[in-house]
Amino acid sequence: MEGGEEEVCVCARREKERDGRERETLDLIHPSHPPSSPSHSPSLHSAGVLLIIFESRPDALPQIAALAIRSGNGLILKGGKEAARSCAALHAVVCDAISSVAPSVGPGLISLVTSRADVGELLKLDDVIDLVIPRGGNALVRAVSEATRIPVLGHADGVCHMFVDAGAAHDVPAAVRLIADAKLDYPAACNAVETVLVSSAWAAGGRGEALVAGLRAAGVESVFGGPAAAAALGLPPAADLHTEYGCAALTLELVPDLPAAIHHIHEHGSGHTEAIITADPAAAAAFLNGVDSACVFANASTRFADGFRFGLGAEVGISTARIHARGPVGVEGLLTAKWVMRGGGQVVAGDGGVTYTHRALPLPAAAGEGGGAGAEE
Amino acid sequence: MEGGEEEVCVCARREKERDGRERETLDLIHPSHPPSSPSHSPSLHSAGVLLIIFESRPDALPQIAALAIRSGNGLILKGGKEAARSCAALHAVVCDAISSVAPSVGPGLISLVTSRADVGELLKLDDVIDLVIPRGGNALVRAVSEATRIPVLGHADGVCHMFVDAGAAHDVPAAVRLIADAKLDYPAACNAVETVLVSSAWAAGGRGEALVAGLRAAGVESVFGGPAAAAALGLPPAADLHTEYGCAALTLELVPDLPAAIHHIHEHGSGHTEAIITADPAAAAAFLNGVDSACVFANASTRFADGFRFGLGAEVGISTARIHARGPVGVEGLLTAKWVMRGGGQVVAGDGGVTYTHRALPLPAAAGEGGGAGAEE
Repeated sequence: MEGGEEEVCVCARREKERDGRERETLDLIHPSHPPSSPSHSPSLHSAGVLLIIFESRPDALPQIAALAIRSGNGLILKGGKEAARSCAALHAVVCDAISSVAPSVGPGLISLVTSRADVGELLKLDDVIDLVIPRGGNALVRAVSEATRIPVLGHADGVCHMFVDAGAAHDVPAAVRLIADAKLDYPAACNAVETVLVSSAWAAGGRGEALVAGLRAAGVESVFGGPAAAAALGLPPAADLHTEYGCAALTLELVPDLPAAIHHIHEHGSGHTEAIITADPAAAAAFLNGVDSACVFANASTRFADGFRFGLGAEVGISTARIHARGPVGVEGLLTAKWVMRGGGQVVAGDGGVTYTHRALPLPAAAGEGGGAGAEE
Repeated sequence: MEGGEEEVCVCARREKERDGRERETLDLIHPSHPPSSPSHSPSLHSAGVLLIIFESRPDALPQIAALAIRSGNGLILKGGKEAARSCAALHAVVCDAISSVAPSVGPGLISLVTSRADVGELLKLDDVIDLVIPRGGNALVRAVSEATRIPVLGHADGVCHMFVDAGAAHDVPAAVRLIADAKLDYPAACNAVETVLVSSAWAAGGRGEALVAGLRAAGVESVFGGPAAAAALGLPPAADLHTEYGCAALTLELVPDLPAAIHHIHEHGSGHTEAIITADPAAAAAFLNGVDSACVFANASTRFADGFRFGLGAEVGISTARIHARGPVGVEGLLTAKWVMRGGGQVVAGDGGVTYTHRALPLPAAAGEGGGAGAEE
């Protein structure tokens, strides 16, 4: 390959394998080794291992187990002690199902850990465990992050905002309906709204008071005020503008305009999910573009931030990290890339005289690959 | 939406924006709010901030700067003191270029840090910096990982393997050519081969000795032996089977068969890049499927594991992590997802009577979005 002008084609393609994992396939196609016919090669990657720590909700167990199986990952589950018996029962069902459908896999694919002491030991195993997903409150997430060098995926808190824009219809019941859904559908969820920002212009003419009254009538037990709203609307002052209530309470604050709302969200939010209520498309666009959160909505409840509703089937959690998966994490967030190249003896040798082109090409036939994979088992 | 049977379509689509960033767009399309016509909405995400610490090679600076600009990320660079003046000169060129092409961005997009003390302070800023990429030896990567809670992308070491399979042609010069390229093209590179595994069957009949002689003749100054090769071929024993020489030296070891080679790689490798030399497609497939590394090659030099050669344009580094980007990291590895939803007042309300469908649909027109984005600036 030294000397003359030669061309090497690198053919990259992302394949979805039968086991649900994706693989980046790369072929160096050299003119003297032309591809014969398109082909697929099976993937038998060794699985990664996930450690997922969740608090009281045992319904997380079957969801997470399903995603781990679908993505070919090994799984260590640590449930909360409040639901220890439910978790043990669900774990037994999952293990039985694996054994009955895939006896060769065996029940060991998914482990259940019960004692808190075990978790400390597991968090040290950064050579064995590939990803930790803590599902629980701020204290759990911080404790896990500080105790391990394994990558941690998740969110510490969900201080979600809704902003009633100056361009929102002067329809107080419509605003109440969206905010009440976002707060009351499941107040303990991370995607429940915690802070409602209201444009001062919209709140004028008694609409601010009517919104508060409407929320209370809908079932919001406590409406605390930020500094401006406490003064203008006579609300009890909120202790902090970054509060995740987890119950039928919220903070309401008045802001002068949309840029101030975005600034407030970046200052006090958690990067999880924020929504604007507006009839003005320009305001909606400015909000959707300007707010830097995992999920940004216009005219919809923050409760839509959910793996099932987004079509991921289920979720192992919602990430506010800026790398890997962001937002609801389903199967894709549990996959990794692998670059595969089939050559014909190519060397780099300083790349003298070689022109690289990068085009999508059909893969050359790889006779016997199925057999080879079989021989590996 | 409560009560009757209603259908909400969630339309997801990954868009590549003008600034090179990708965005996941999601539309809740409700029959009573039909889409009018397909539309694109501009993306003005606030950029993330990268901290990239590299050792002596100043050529990394323009590559990394280009990828950061292309992906819309802010960048803090820390070069090694050996190349401080080259880095300062390159940094000035990059800043001038940004100022001349995009005066509104200004030169502050890319910072250059020179003192080691500054790095310690920067590594504490996990609320400001989104990703750290250390490019250097094992000691640097470990020191960075231990000193920060910011996600770290990269690889601690590159102990790459090449395996001469029993099914390789009995062509010693061809094997020498591939291995010599992988070792000698750039011995200090992370994708240079460090350990050559040779099938005992292939090595028989004097080919093991001929391979060693050929490698020495090609310029490999030291060939150390693993336990079996030291005994069988009279090689000086290797100190450790996990050694990254970084110079014209390598370890050679004999293995009984392909499964033993794969086992050796998983036991002593670093998950970076491994290659098999074989004429047997089944063996190639078994190796490519069975070896769990970021890059796996058949019949090509390990030196191909490179962002430029893979068609990424350049690379900020090569990752052996199992989350986020794996292998050479270009623009895609510096992007994050954002879920955007435009609704028409939808609430969750327990999802009673709602059927979710998830299909790719054209986006509804979002009149005024461009103006809104403009108004945001």
